[in-house]
Amino acid sequence: MNKKKLSRQALKRLPVYMSYLKTLEKTETEYVSSAAVAQALDLNDVQVRKDLAAVCKSSGIPKRGFAVRDLINGISDFLGYGSGNDAILIGAGKLGMALMSYRGFDNYGINIVAAFDTRPEVIDNERVYELSQIKEICKKYDIKIGIITVPVDSAQRVCDMLVESGILAIWNFAPIHIKAPANILVQNENMASSLALLSNHLRQKMLNDTQ
Amino acid sequence: MNKKKLSRQALKRLPVYMSYLKTLEKTETEYVSSAAVAQALDLNDVQVRKDLAAVCKSSGIPKRGFAVRDLINGISDFLGYGSGNDAILIGAGKLGMALMSYRGFDNYGINIVAAFDTRPEVIDNERVYELSQIKEICKKYDIKIGIITVPVDSAQRVCDMLVESGILAIWNFAPIHIKAPANILVQNENMASSLALLSNHLRQKMLNDTQ
Repeated sequence: MNKKKLSRQALKRLPVYMSYLKTLEKTETEYVSSAAVAQALDLNDVQVRKDLAAVCKSSGIPKRGFAVRDLINGISDFLGYGSGNDAILIGAGKLGMALMSYRGFDNYGINIVAAFDTRPEVIDNERVYELSQIKEICKKYDIKIGIITVPVDSAQRVCDMLVESGILAIWNFAPIHIKAPANILVQNENMASSLALLSNHLRQKMLNDTQ
Repeated sequence: MNKKKLSRQALKRLPVYMSYLKTLEKTETEYVSSAAVAQALDLNDVQVRKDLAAVCKSSGIPKRGFAVRDLINGISDFLGYGSGNDAILIGAGKLGMALMSYRGFDNYGINIVAAFDTRPEVIDNERVYELSQIKEICKKYDIKIGIITVPVDSAQRVCDMLVESGILAIWNFAPIHIKAPANILVQNENMASSLALLSNHLRQKMLNDTQ
């Protein structure tokens, strides 16, 4: 199958389409036009048509649009959701364990198979392993995705260990910039930065109200 | 106290400084220069100096830099971390409950006081309430932050309810664009989009390796 390359921004829209298409599927809608998708999601019509055409094997039927099922399969296939990417997580603290217990990632083909930590009290050798075993386990199970949920002062060291262990994509929840070779994707999920924006918005509002 | 306005990008950097400053505090480092902070975090020196000067009450001491404690207090104060913003969460599913059980938000002054859902089996009237009570509870406890963790097809309806209930800042985890009046801040946290980037990066790598 000849898969096109999509821009980073287009890739980020695919899960948004997917969520919407799944709501259509629930209501047994069989066809949808790119214009209808664009309107529902408040996106640009031309952009949506281009994105959907890139991921869908069959082109749309005039006046009916794309088959909802084809689009769902196309996006799922494009993003490798069905293939089940195994991931490991480093830092079995509060956030790490919350992510590990959240089964929703399964929908996106990500399966967290093990966590690593250095604190003996959280290591059970069943779900949580000693950090020193990371390379061995990554090689053994051919793990390509690493999730970092360690404190900020260990994040770079953990990133280096992941790279040495053959990890190709890193999802970093530590609120710090980490450095990796150019062929490794680092996706930063800085929830603290989001909270900073929220808090500051509220503070500004309150200041304006009292002036 | 005369607080300056910071750009959105500068605001997002504040929690990054904070994390780093806390690691310095742990090692009992008393002073730090903006150049040292910039180097440690791989940021621009001039930018860091400007950011830190904006949040810190005392200016730095020549050759020693800023007092670490003053910077921590300054950022904390600037972002209202100490003041404890109460938040509610709508959608007591897997992600919602994971966020609710994650106590790490306390560090950022966000306190999730209640969740709402429509499914009778998850409502205990202690932590999880019936969605119809949202307005009453928001008014009673003067809640200004709402966190959306509902499925994509209910996200806009929930957003509208939050706005009606007097919420000023929304943290949206539903992977869909939601519309709110201009005076309400909507911060999107689209984890599915992050996962799409990761999955696609892996897929491209695999394709390249097999070609």
